Amino acid sequence: MAPLESITQSLASLSIAPSASVTHAAASSPAAWREALESSEGAPKSFELVKTIVYKPKTAKTATPVPLVVIARENTDVISAALGRKLNLKELRLASEDLLAEFFAVDKHSLSPLALNENNFSKVAVAVDTTIEESSSTFAIRGLTTEATLFITGRELVSYLKRLETKEAQINLVDFEALKTEAPAATPAAQPAKKEKEDAKIEGAVQIAIGVKKEVDFATWYTSVLTKADMIDYYNVSGCYILKPWSYSIWEIIQGWFDAHIKELGVQNAYFPMFVSAKVLEREKDHVEGFSPEVAWVTRAGSSDLEEPIAIRPTSETVMYPHYAKWIKSHRDLPLKLNQWNNVVRWEFKNPQPFLRTREFLWQEGHTAFLTKAEADKEVRDILDLYRRVYEELLAVPVIPGVKSEKEKFAGGLYTTTVEGFIPTSGRAIQAATSHCLGQNFSRPEMFDIVVEDPNDITGKGKIYVWQNSWGLSTRTIGVMVMTHGDNQGLVLPPRVASVQVVIVPCGVTANNRQEMNDKCEELASMLRKAGIKARADVRDGYTPGYKFNDWEQKGVPLRLELGPADLAKKQTLSVRRDTGVKAPLALGEIAKTVPQLLETIQADLFKRAKEAYDSRLKTITNWGEVVPALDSKCVVAMPWCEEEACEDDIKERSGRSSEPQDERAPSAGAKSLCIPFDQERFPPIEPGKTKCTACGKDAKRWTLFGRSY
Amino acid sequence: MAPLESITQSLASLSIAPSASVTHAAASSPAAWREALESSEGAPKSFELVKTIVYKPKTAKTATPVPLVVIARENTDVISAALGRKLNLKELRLASEDLLAEFFAVDKHSLSPLALNENNFSKVAVAVDTTIEESSSTFAIRGLTTEATLFITGRELVSYLKRLETKEAQINLVDFEALKTEAPAATPAAQPAKKEKEDAKIEGAVQIAIGVKKEVDFATWYTSVLTKADMIDYYNVSGCYILKPWSYSIWEIIQGWFDAHIKELGVQNAYFPMFVSAKVLEREKDHVEGFSPEVAWVTRAGSSDLEEPIAIRPTSETVMYPHYAKWIKSHRDLPLKLNQWNNVVRWEFKNPQPFLRTREFLWQEGHTAFLTKAEADKEVRDILDLYRRVYEELLAVPVIPGVKSEKEKFAGGLYTTTVEGFIPTSGRAIQAATSHCLGQNFSRPEMFDIVVEDPNDITGKGKIYVWQNSWGLSTRTIGVMVMTHGDNQGLVLPPRVASVQVVIVPCGVTANNRQEMNDKCEELASMLRKAGIKARADVRDGYTPGYKFNDWEQKGVPLRLELGPADLAKKQTLSVRRDTGVKAPLALGEIAKTVPQLLETIQADLFKRAKEAYDSRLKTITNWGEVVPALDSKCVVAMPWCEEEACEDDIKERSGRSSEPQDERAPSAGAKSLCIPFDQERFPPIEPGKTKCTACGKDAKRWTLFGRSY
Repeated sequence: MAPLESITQSLASLSIAPSASVTHAAASSPAAWREALESSEGAPKSFELVKTIVYKPKTAKTATPVPLVVIARENTDVISAALGRKLNLKELRLASEDLLAEFFAVDKHSLSPLALNENNFSKVAVAVDTTIEESSSTFAIRGLTTEATLFITGRELVSYLKRLETKEAQINLVDFEALKTEAPAATPAAQPAKKEKEDAKIEGAVQIAIGVKKEVDFATWYTSVLTKADMIDYYNVSGCYILKPWSYSIWEIIQGWFDAHIKELGVQNAYFPMFVSAKVLEREKDHVEGFSPEVAWVTRAGSSDLEEPIAIRPTSETVMYPHYAKWIKSHRDLPLKLNQWNNVVRWEFKNPQPFLRTREFLWQEGHTAFLTKAEADKEVRDILDLYRRVYEELLAVPVIPGVKSEKEKFAGGLYTTTVEGFIPTSGRAIQAATSHCLGQNFSRPEMFDIVVEDPNDITGKGKIYVWQNSWGLSTRTIGVMVMTHGDNQGLVLPPRVASVQVVIVPCGVTANNRQEMNDKCEELASMLRKAGIKARADVRDGYTPGYKFNDWEQKGVPLRLELGPADLAKKQTLSVRRDTGVKAPLALGEIAKTVPQLLETIQADLFKRAKEAYDSRLKTITNWGEVVPALDSKCVVAMPWCEEEACEDDIKERSGRSSEPQDERAPSAGAKSLCIPFDQERFPPIEPGKTKCTACGKDAKRWTLFGRSY
Repeated sequence: MAPLESITQSLASLSIAPSASVTHAAASSPAAWREALESSEGAPKSFELVKTIVYKPKTAKTATPVPLVVIARENTDVISAALGRKLNLKELRLASEDLLAEFFAVDKHSLSPLALNENNFSKVAVAVDTTIEESSSTFAIRGLTTEATLFITGRELVSYLKRLETKEAQINLVDFEALKTEAPAATPAAQPAKKEKEDAKIEGAVQIAIGVKKEVDFATWYTSVLTKADMIDYYNVSGCYILKPWSYSIWEIIQGWFDAHIKELGVQNAYFPMFVSAKVLEREKDHVEGFSPEVAWVTRAGSSDLEEPIAIRPTSETVMYPHYAKWIKSHRDLPLKLNQWNNVVRWEFKNPQPFLRTREFLWQEGHTAFLTKAEADKEVRDILDLYRRVYEELLAVPVIPGVKSEKEKFAGGLYTTTVEGFIPTSGRAIQAATSHCLGQNFSRPEMFDIVVEDPNDITGKGKIYVWQNSWGLSTRTIGVMVMTHGDNQGLVLPPRVASVQVVIVPCGVTANNRQEMNDKCEELASMLRKAGIKARADVRDGYTPGYKFNDWEQKGVPLRLELGPADLAKKQTLSVRRDTGVKAPLALGEIAKTVPQLLETIQADLFKRAKEAYDSRLKTITNWGEVVPALDSKCVVAMPWCEEEACEDDIKERSGRSSEPQDERAPSAGAKSLCIPFDQERFPPIEPGKTKCTACGKDAKRWTLFGRSY
């Protein structure tokens, strides 16, 4: 990695030799970073993470800001208000990504003391945790990337910084511990609002699941939930994650449901090779342009170089369609409806995120061919509705079905339909699944030439190039579900996708009654399983009920049943809902009826709450002035739109530019069109020639959703 | 490809420029070759295949043989007896692979007129189809490999050969058509035995499914069945095949059955990334040695070279076990039982064969860890028994369970158990599935270091390195099933793995009754589906009943029901078994009972016949002199064995050397040990110190199977 090398060289010139330097999976949260280092072979056994935080003090609008760089131990509490007072800086706020890029040429996750150099040192203020100064412990610091880390001692770190000092610019050594005791007394009211980052840490976090709050540090919360709920593990190839049984079982449930439904539509499963020759891959120019920057190439086998590099499928249009041309010889061979469940590879260089953006992922891809456009159009919508149902009926995640704008449609296709999800916590929309009509773009003679005789042409000379669709649903589903329902105790699973729907925990256990209580719990579990419920008794020895409660809450099990001697005496069990925490006793005799009902209620409530959240953040707007403020307050905008590409570019530009991020976590990208909802009825009618596009003032065509998105 | 280049150059030096030269999927039969060329873009629209056959005339044992090379159009009948008489050569027999290698340095599938060169031309006789001589048509000739083809005109081909002529050695132009009419009269009795290759073509092949006989040209028969039954399609990346719904549905049935059974054993599914870093892959030396020559490497993504090449998993031990080390912290975390259904890549350079040896294949791989060896041992056998049941109960294929010799066990494991199948037609054994005990080889400290405290050690200091298993079953299952049951009409599917178990064909249809007959057939199909039978009515317009019969026979549907007006009048349907051809009327009123019974009978009969064939070819031998003749007569040998590796090497050497192949299709490799059957009771008892190893005469330990194998 080039930057790492140059850093090591420049450290060497200061006689500082890192005790180790390692590359690892991209890690954008402290938890993930530590994970990555712990699973990295080259890393020392023991080390401490260094955190680097940049604040922007309040200055006059016209003044050049002087950012404050704080370098501290991972566990040091940095209270910005107290620090500001000490250094005489006003209203410290976390710096925006733009500022970081401008001053240090890095993103926030790659930030490190090494971002300070001779060029920028004089333009910033620096505060260093005094406990680092003389420490001979080993500290991990970012190699200016999320994928590399250097290990040096505290002494070496401070020595590096001191070399940068000039008469005008010196580092401030700060005793943050001392600052902490001063702080509250000085500004008891002002402080809480100022230390957002610290608020993200939940008090008493040792005893509860997730160490950071969903509302405050969403990205860290997300990865923390995924690892603590035992859904994923990090892997030493960047952008790849291990799907552990707790998440893979969700995928199996989705697979089972969707597979049965497409088979009812006459779709058959098949398997095509994962390898594509360059020549075939590059047949459809528009299509390949969409994927080629992300294609992984195999160039060697054993110790032999391949004559020609072979691509790993990013999707299978070009793999399959040469064969469709061969198999479809007559209109009697239509419709052809194939699907495959497989893995695909898109070597993204952006920051990966488990489930949402990974280099290898699992999905299904359906590829169908029809004689007529009408049949293709119908199937596009039939499949999209199955996607909607996967989200709404299985995952309890509301989505809005619609059609993509020309700019956002599938590369090489005719039109794309989509179900669009929304994550209220980040205020970002997410493309949940897409069903494309490819039209005749892939079947035309200069492409794959998939053609049959027109059965209705009496001259016998007419030809029809087939109408094609492709449609895909991926493991992204799981990430959207986690983001939607999870809370500060961890994962919350909708009952229909939970591999354990009910956990039974024995309570009030003593040495004398242990066996009896365990047996009763197993009995109860067995009764529930007979009623078709996925139930498990947690009779593990050596764990307290409290530990078990927490463990299963973290993992999102929808319903807990507590069973103790007192419950048994009353022939009841205490039920505790994961989603609401509501407790209610259930009579043991009616359990086979009440538990399934309760699970269905939980499923319905989860959906209802998520739907209300989505609806409340969907703003119907006809005045441009309200658009950016709505986006900034984490909403999605529905507005009458002209549907012109230039206008869409313009909206992105204007909404991106005008959004001055208030802290580093605010979404900074411009808004793009999400979809033109099929359900136009929910909005006021568009009056042709009268209703104008909210963005450009031309005639509006349809209500369209715009938002910042994943 | 180097050879192709040098050929093109040497042709150029003779002023012959091929009109095209293409590389393609390895094709080892004429059918596959034509397929490969037809799906290859660079190939001309129209061409004819050239066949090159080498015969060895009978000579005195001490004399140097002079092979006869015959170059003819694909469709030209070459009658060896008549040709021998014409050229005055005695008893032409197809030459052995050894002879081909010695004279032409190619295998039979790569043979081509271009194998003739200045070095060997004077040592052979050459006969050329006279109709090629002046032809300006384009002919496809092998580029001395199964993966490349050149296209030249007949005139150019003969001109190439003529340049090689010397006074002593000239080509013979032969009119094979004229020869044909002479031949039978001359030696009416002798001829039929001499033209094996021609016998492989079945008379009237146009009207029946498979153009070659299973018993005569097994390799061509196999690929022909697979393509005609619509199970696979060839693909333009060598060694990769498309699994079409007709074969993939079999895999789905196997998956469903096996998945449910391992879940009962407490195994959970997960998904690990397909990529492995070189460092991790190479951790276990013995293990990686077994795979490294076949590993495919990704070295580039988009247009960027990766810093380090990344391997595609050939199997996932090294992918998974670093994480097992992390997850298993205490004996409470044991047992850990994970499985994944995925694709793996082994870039074999040997001739690929669909299902049996492919570069990418689908399988499941289970990876489990236990506290004790006893638990691991038990699971190895539990899983092996499930594999046995997949073969015997679903695929109706008999297998023999046993343990592998030290030489044949899994690289890096402790011991390997296997179910061994057998293909009577080729006389070759086939490893059907394996369940490995890895022992502590992967968990030891210098390897993946998977360790827990010994719960039974009161000092609290004892450590236990976990005991591990891994086990896998692949799509090879499908190939073995096809080879076992298929016949000269095509595929024969055992009912339990058939996606269509019963097909109903309307007969006696006229313009007047068409709709009624079709409706009745659909009604019948619907009745059967209600009885749990996978039934389909074939009411396609424009196809005769005969066409439909043939179509479904080719595809192996276990049972056909014919329904005509006469049947309806008698309230019956005519059932026709695919496996035996036996016809029997069934009363329509009892169909929901009789059809399921009949299907179970078919399933049982298929297994019974296959079992009898296997048993009849399993020879119990205690005298070395009988071993090679048994192998040569397509049998598997069971013999008392010393279980020493040197002896196994020796057996391979001796059985290979002594087998003078009688024609090009005879298996020529030496025999290896297949397994030491668990069921030793079926053989006479081994008396310690008395019973000797059949091969080397030392004390025998157990009865062991030896055979030539895939």
